[in-house]
Amino acid sequence: MSEEHKPVADDVAKHNAKMAKKKAARDKIMATKTDEKGLVIVHTGKGKGKSTAAFGMIFRNIAHGRKCSVVQFIKGGMSTGERDLILDKFGDVCSFHTMGEGFTWETQDKSRDIEMAQAAWAKAKEEILDESNHMILLDEINIAIRYDYIDINDVVAFLKAHKPHMTHVVLTGRNAKEELIDAADLVTEMELVKHPFRSGIKAQIGVEW
Amino acid sequence: MSEEHKPVADDVAKHNAKMAKKKAARDKIMATKTDEKGLVIVHTGKGKGKSTAAFGMIFRNIAHGRKCSVVQFIKGGMSTGERDLILDKFGDVCSFHTMGEGFTWETQDKSRDIEMAQAAWAKAKEEILDESNHMILLDEINIAIRYDYIDINDVVAFLKAHKPHMTHVVLTGRNAKEELIDAADLVTEMELVKHPFRSGIKAQIGVEW
Repeated sequence: MSEEHKPVADDVAKHNAKMAKKKAARDKIMATKTDEKGLVIVHTGKGKGKSTAAFGMIFRNIAHGRKCSVVQFIKGGMSTGERDLILDKFGDVCSFHTMGEGFTWETQDKSRDIEMAQAAWAKAKEEILDESNHMILLDEINIAIRYDYIDINDVVAFLKAHKPHMTHVVLTGRNAKEELIDAADLVTEMELVKHPFRSGIKAQIGVEW
Repeated sequence: MSEEHKPVADDVAKHNAKMAKKKAARDKIMATKTDEKGLVIVHTGKGKGKSTAAFGMIFRNIAHGRKCSVVQFIKGGMSTGERDLILDKFGDVCSFHTMGEGFTWETQDKSRDIEMAQAAWAKAKEEILDESNHMILLDEINIAIRYDYIDINDVVAFLKAHKPHMTHVVLTGRNAKEELIDAADLVTEMELVKHPFRSGIKAQIGVEW
């Protein structure tokens, strides 16, 4: 420990008292949080980490041996690393359905995009209804909703009426609709503060895919 | 496909033209992004997903068989799922160092916290200097920096002088200091929009840990 970091006794006593107070306050708040229920979780915003954090939660469930399922609405062609790892090692715990055909500006075929989005939504409903699943990730569904390939009212109505009480459903993608945010329990907006693309750095293995 | 979603031919042609234009614009932009380099990546903000997205990137590297390392500065006592999974299945690809002793208001011992944070930082430097690592995650280091357990100037100077060119370093935790944001290539702020704790829901398996 460097000299400047060495605390003096008074400082330590003051710090410890402050921390004890913080801990007591926190314990009091946490004691009121007693309910458990399956959450509707939304990751949106223009920043990075929406799908990555959602996949992190999927790996968290896998780590606990809890059955889960991923339905990819848009196949980015990039974030295939997680898919390969899940299919390879954890296929028994987590099912994986890639229904999309690439970003819409890559496919350039609207009727096919709509068909794919509808098929993905049908698969999503099936996975949500399966009570053995603890978490279902609907990756990039917000893109399909935004283009009206899937009706937001259908999605919200289905979640309200049919999501099993203890099942978590995670919906990702930018431009989440207000109706979805209203219906969600946990919403995080990933905000872009600084991006290396601006300095000419391309998408890289291990970061973007 | 439902009747209302069936596109008419004109609509499709218009859409396809628009998407072709979008794709051309995007391809043009992407063609200018040709460089590769190891990034300094920061996840900050009050929202969820900072560590989860960082662990998602670690799993992405594991998926590609790329060696990586995690140094946890604060042991939350909660997000142990990922650690167990990594230690259990991927110890050959990813090393894992939990140096923290719990949140500061849990330990209530400032001199011990400082010692732990300094030890974690020493381990972090060692892992960063090891060029066989493609990515190093410094989980919750921002908390240790915020309390001045680690000097922000030391961190920034070390990254600038010693980070190998192709190594990615990910630093997480709320209240990232300005100096770190200035030094980073990619910064995402996870913003809290809605949180279920407000309605009395407790931290749950598969979501929070």
